[in-house]
Amino acid sequence: MANQPSPHAGVADLEIGMLLYPGLTLLDLAGPQFALCLHGNTHLFWKTLDPVMTDSGMTVMPTKRFADAVPALDVIFVPGGATTTEIMQDEETIAFVAEKGRDARYVTSVCSGSLILGMAGLLDGYRAATHWAMYDILEAMGIEAGRERVVADRNRLTGGGVTAGIDIGLTLLAALRGPDVARMTQLIMEYDPAPPFDAGHPSKVGPDLVAAAKAFIGSERFLSEGIEIARECRTHSLACA
Amino acid sequence: MANQPSPHAGVADLEIGMLLYPGLTLLDLAGPQFALCLHGNTHLFWKTLDPVMTDSGMTVMPTKRFADAVPALDVIFVPGGATTTEIMQDEETIAFVAEKGRDARYVTSVCSGSLILGMAGLLDGYRAATHWAMYDILEAMGIEAGRERVVADRNRLTGGGVTAGIDIGLTLLAALRGPDVARMTQLIMEYDPAPPFDAGHPSKVGPDLVAAAKAFIGSERFLSEGIEIARECRTHSLACA
Repeated sequence: MANQPSPHAGVADLEIGMLLYPGLTLLDLAGPQFALCLHGNTHLFWKTLDPVMTDSGMTVMPTKRFADAVPALDVIFVPGGATTTEIMQDEETIAFVAEKGRDARYVTSVCSGSLILGMAGLLDGYRAATHWAMYDILEAMGIEAGRERVVADRNRLTGGGVTAGIDIGLTLLAALRGPDVARMTQLIMEYDPAPPFDAGHPSKVGPDLVAAAKAFIGSERFLSEGIEIARECRTHSLACA
Repeated sequence: MANQPSPHAGVADLEIGMLLYPGLTLLDLAGPQFALCLHGNTHLFWKTLDPVMTDSGMTVMPTKRFADAVPALDVIFVPGGATTTEIMQDEETIAFVAEKGRDARYVTSVCSGSLILGMAGLLDGYRAATHWAMYDILEAMGIEAGRERVVADRNRLTGGGVTAGIDIGLTLLAALRGPDVARMTQLIMEYDPAPPFDAGHPSKVGPDLVAAAKAFIGSERFLSEGIEIARECRTHSLACA
């Protein structure tokens, strides 16, 4: 039920640039993409227009190449994914994010996407959120890691892990179109959450479950790789971009 | 962070069949697909392997044709979408859903996906959920519409609108793998929701916002079409399949 015309007579469509990359987490992106597509254009960027395999095994199609022209962006959005540490070292992607982030009205991410924003130099001097297992990578870049689900610092809006995308999408919409439009969109999405358990954050569960989750997703290797990349970037005085 | 090996040593991978169709709502499906892919195989079915455009303008790829063989399914899952009333009348798709639903351990949906299950005759004698704007279509099929976010009636597990997919995914996982696995998955997804507003259901907002949301998504036309299709199906004593 998402392809209706915009009701914002006389208001320009929002222009949203969203980064795709092989190994991204689709659910990071699907929340804000749904909320924002109701009010504008969500451009899905990758280097080429070839299919992109996400980390849940679902394949999606880019709509724009990095080199393609689009209108000035209201938002650049970066999702997390299983391959974030690879993308952190991918010069072409980091340069693209840095360039789009320089001019966008809002610079945003979900989950480990903030590590990519950090490598692009877009979080220097800002607080930012990330997946609960990845706080130390942000800190290794010299970026203060906020433990909240949504961290808003001036025009940087970053979210915690995976499902925080829905909260980021609605928060962003409220900033861009006002609370009434955001509330209507929340109603359309029937976002009245009723989790079957209260286990969505390490602060809610015991250490055994946290350890099991870390082992399951292999976060220790991800963390040590990410910290090394972040430190190297700082040591060589690259602008992380 | 979703492509790790299963920790269920000695436990067979879950086999999950998910219906794709042009106009589906990707966010309906992305929640359960993420949660379940961590513990098994999520097959994305459509008539062909051609790209499928969702109702938010994002294109995804099927992994299996209706005719392709897959192991016995633990779950059949049907998402909602802007084109549900078209799919309700699509004989090939309804026959596929009916066949897979007959043998699956769990028959599940999110949003207007339950209308497709209903047309396939899979909800006769069951209570079911759907998007809040679509209750009357279920009722027109003679199916009792539950107003809850997740309705579990024996092995039928149906969800409310769009974002209910995350709750359905975790509820399903608890049924299939037990609460500990579901809680670990909730932690991995960082599903600790913090909606910026309390506007996710008609019971939480005023009539003006409900009317605005209905107008925005064009639900009146969808509703009248859906009711007509449902009644015609019953009048002609089709098994809705």
